[in-house]
Amino acid sequence: MTKRKVFFISDRTGITAETLGGSLLTQFPKIQFTKTFIPFVTDVTSAKNAVSTIIEQTKVDGEDPIVFSTLTDPEILSIIATSSPNVFDLFGTFVGPLEKALESNSSRSAGKMHGISDTTAYETRLSALNFTLNHDDGLSPSDFHEADIVLMGVSRCGKTPTCLYLSMHYSLKAANYPLTSDDFNKLKMPEVLRSVKNKVYGLTIRPEQLSRIRRERRPEGEYSKLSNCRKEVSIAETLFKAENLPFLDTSTVSIEEIAATIVQAMGLH
Amino acid sequence: MTKRKVFFISDRTGITAETLGGSLLTQFPKIQFTKTFIPFVTDVTSAKNAVSTIIEQTKVDGEDPIVFSTLTDPEILSIIATSSPNVFDLFGTFVGPLEKALESNSSRSAGKMHGISDTTAYETRLSALNFTLNHDDGLSPSDFHEADIVLMGVSRCGKTPTCLYLSMHYSLKAANYPLTSDDFNKLKMPEVLRSVKNKVYGLTIRPEQLSRIRRERRPEGEYSKLSNCRKEVSIAETLFKAENLPFLDTSTVSIEEIAATIVQAMGLH
Repeated sequence: MTKRKVFFISDRTGITAETLGGSLLTQFPKIQFTKTFIPFVTDVTSAKNAVSTIIEQTKVDGEDPIVFSTLTDPEILSIIATSSPNVFDLFGTFVGPLEKALESNSSRSAGKMHGISDTTAYETRLSALNFTLNHDDGLSPSDFHEADIVLMGVSRCGKTPTCLYLSMHYSLKAANYPLTSDDFNKLKMPEVLRSVKNKVYGLTIRPEQLSRIRRERRPEGEYSKLSNCRKEVSIAETLFKAENLPFLDTSTVSIEEIAATIVQAMGLH
Repeated sequence: MTKRKVFFISDRTGITAETLGGSLLTQFPKIQFTKTFIPFVTDVTSAKNAVSTIIEQTKVDGEDPIVFSTLTDPEILSIIATSSPNVFDLFGTFVGPLEKALESNSSRSAGKMHGISDTTAYETRLSALNFTLNHDDGLSPSDFHEADIVLMGVSRCGKTPTCLYLSMHYSLKAANYPLTSDDFNKLKMPEVLRSVKNKVYGLTIRPEQLSRIRRERRPEGEYSKLSNCRKEVSIAETLFKAENLPFLDTSTVSIEEIAATIVQAMGLH
């Protein structure tokens, strides 16, 4: 397999460079990439250090490295540009055309996307995260009327990670409610969720995968047995359909995809 | 303030489009943007629907909207391109030059960045998140030798959100340990952290901000009083310095920036 070195250079966290650069690299599945992240490149000294690092790490390769940059300062970028013939200016490439389209000059300031550019928005996000942590696994269901979304499903189907992502990324107050044997016997929407039914979204999962995940946590007993997982999943899905709830199978879907699907389906963005 | 409509079109979650597009827009602070996200545009029908939405929402504006696309399929993109003269192809712009630099054809498949492209990596991430949830707020410190990082600081200085981000984004097992009155009296590294000292990173915060955050949670009592917050923060910082621990003031820094700083300082990426 061909190997190539890739550097992600940014004046702030490097998240934008990593996101787009990483996404572009997934288009080349036959090449094995070694990634190095150099964030907080904010001045001439740190830019020169980054160039040294890049040259040092690639001089035995015989191949020029790929360098993804989201730097905003043209002077800093011009230093980084000396590190390789393959420097991709992910940010600056669009600034000029965008200035034209918006008929406005850009501020050319260091990346603010992941800084605290808006204090109110930032506090909303932290308060959403606190709500989510305090309403995990069916905690305090009497507060669910304050939630933006309530995820429902059997234990270990992905509710908690999805809720955390929904609050962290979309600033949503995301609660979740685990379906347990009580609910299975009744085959009805849990009473406590009835008044917030329009906020409820179901998650389901393939029984084989559920059983595997549960065995890691509790290898013995009924909880992780495939037959029991089959029964629970089947009842959960019957309940979703009977109550006409939207639901999603999380088996082959990442947290980001589950979250984006829910946000779109519930019109929450 | 000038207003402009912006659309983010993607064939998957839309996170890459939102990240880079949003980052570019922060360079135009004088314009107020109304953002619409249209993820999962995967076929001709959904592309045509997206175009209708864009045209519908902007026909009274008299200004062409900005459209950020991370679509990978040229046919779908060509449909979206009819929605506005200002369509920015954030992804395709770099695919050609990258093919040349890598001397390899791209797979031109839909964005995989936020899908489960690597099952092992995905399970590592979920297991990091579980570890983090089970080692929040000083829980099970006897497991801290398994952690990649242990954050230490006074209550409400940002430890939990940072740990969650570290696990969610960087797949790190992040534990945290709250400094309490016991530790304040001793003015020494808590005994239980001694053997993992090389994994400990301190967080601190301005006392005024700490007091405000704590008041929201518990308006009365010693806990949120400014004088008490001053004392706690001062002792925490003295302890960090005495023990020669790296530490960061989180007061004006976002979760992403705190996390990126820690990851770089501790060489964890």
